[in-house]
Amino acid sequence: MSLSKRIPMFVLRLLALGASVSATLIMLTSHDTAQVFNIKFEAKYSNSPTFKYFVLINAIASGYTFILMFFPSKSSYGHLILVLDLIMGLLLDSSVSACIAIGQLGKKGNNHAGWLPICGQVPKFCDHITGALVSGFVAAIIYFFILLYSIYNLFTLKA
Amino acid sequence: MSLSKRIPMFVLRLLALGASVSATLIMLTSHDTAQVFNIKFEAKYSNSPTFKYFVLINAIASGYTFILMFFPSKSSYGHLILVLDLIMGLLLDSSVSACIAIGQLGKKGNNHAGWLPICGQVPKFCDHITGALVSGFVAAIIYFFILLYSIYNLFTLKA
Repeated sequence: MSLSKRIPMFVLRLLALGASVSATLIMLTSHDTAQVFNIKFEAKYSNSPTFKYFVLINAIASGYTFILMFFPSKSSYGHLILVLDLIMGLLLDSSVSACIAIGQLGKKGNNHAGWLPICGQVPKFCDHITGALVSGFVAAIIYFFILLYSIYNLFTLKA
Repeated sequence: MSLSKRIPMFVLRLLALGASVSATLIMLTSHDTAQVFNIKFEAKYSNSPTFKYFVLINAIASGYTFILMFFPSKSSYGHLILVLDLIMGLLLDSSVSACIAIGQLGKKGNNHAGWLPICGQVPKFCDHITGALVSGFVAAIIYFFILLYSIYNLFTLKA
C-alpha cells in the first residue's frame, strides 16, 4: 500500500482506537448506588452479561487496532487483514446492538414483561452507559469506513 | 463473474433467503398467554421494540436476497453489491445480537435490576423466539460467508 493510502487508514485506525478505548473505560467506570425501600441497590456494568460482553469486545478491538496501526502493510497480508477487520467490525456491531437493546430497557422498561425502568434510580450509571454506547457506536461506524476504504483500495488497485 | 463462481453464490443466497424468511415468520407467529394472579398476560413479538427491529431487518434481508439472486452479475455493479452485502450483514448481525440480549433476559432475568425471567410463564413464546434467533443467526453467518466469498473472488480476479 502506498503512503498516500496508508495515511487515511492510519487516521481511521487512530480514531477507532480512541473510540474503543473510551468505550471500554467509560463502561468499566460506570457505577451508581440507590436506596429503594431501605434496600441498598448497586448498579455496575458487571451486573449484566451484555455489558461484560461489550467491555470484552471493545478491549479486544482496542488491542487489535493498536497492533494494526504499526503493522507493516505487505500486500500478501492484505486479504487476511480485510477478513480480520470484517470480523472486528461485526463483533463491535454486535456488542453495541446488544447493549442498546438492554439500555433501552433500562431507560423505558417493558411493562408487558413487568420489567421496570431503572434509570430513574441510578441516573449516574445510565449516563455512563449512554456515553459508553455512543463511543462504541462511533468505533463500529469507523470500522465500517475502514472496511469501505479497504474495498475501495482493492477496486482501484484492480482497475 | 463466471458461471462456476455464480453457482456457489446463488446457493449461499438461497440458504440466506431460507434462513431470513424462516426467522421473520417464526418471530411473527410467536405468541403465548399466561394467567398470573388472575391477570391475563399475553406475550407477542410486538411487545418488544427489539423483536420488531428483528422482524423488520429479516424482512428487508429476505427481499434484498431474493432480488440479488436474479440480479445480472455485471462486474460494474460488483463493488456496489459488495457494499450492500456488507450493510445487510451488519444489520442482520445487529438484529440477532440485540434479540439474543433480550432473549437471555427473558430466560434468566436480572435480579440486580429486579427483572424476573418470563420464559417459565410463556414457554411457547420463548421456544418460538429461540427458533427465530437460531434462524436469524444462521442468516447472519451465511452473510458472513457471502462477504468472504466476494472478497476471495476479488483477490483471485486480481492475482
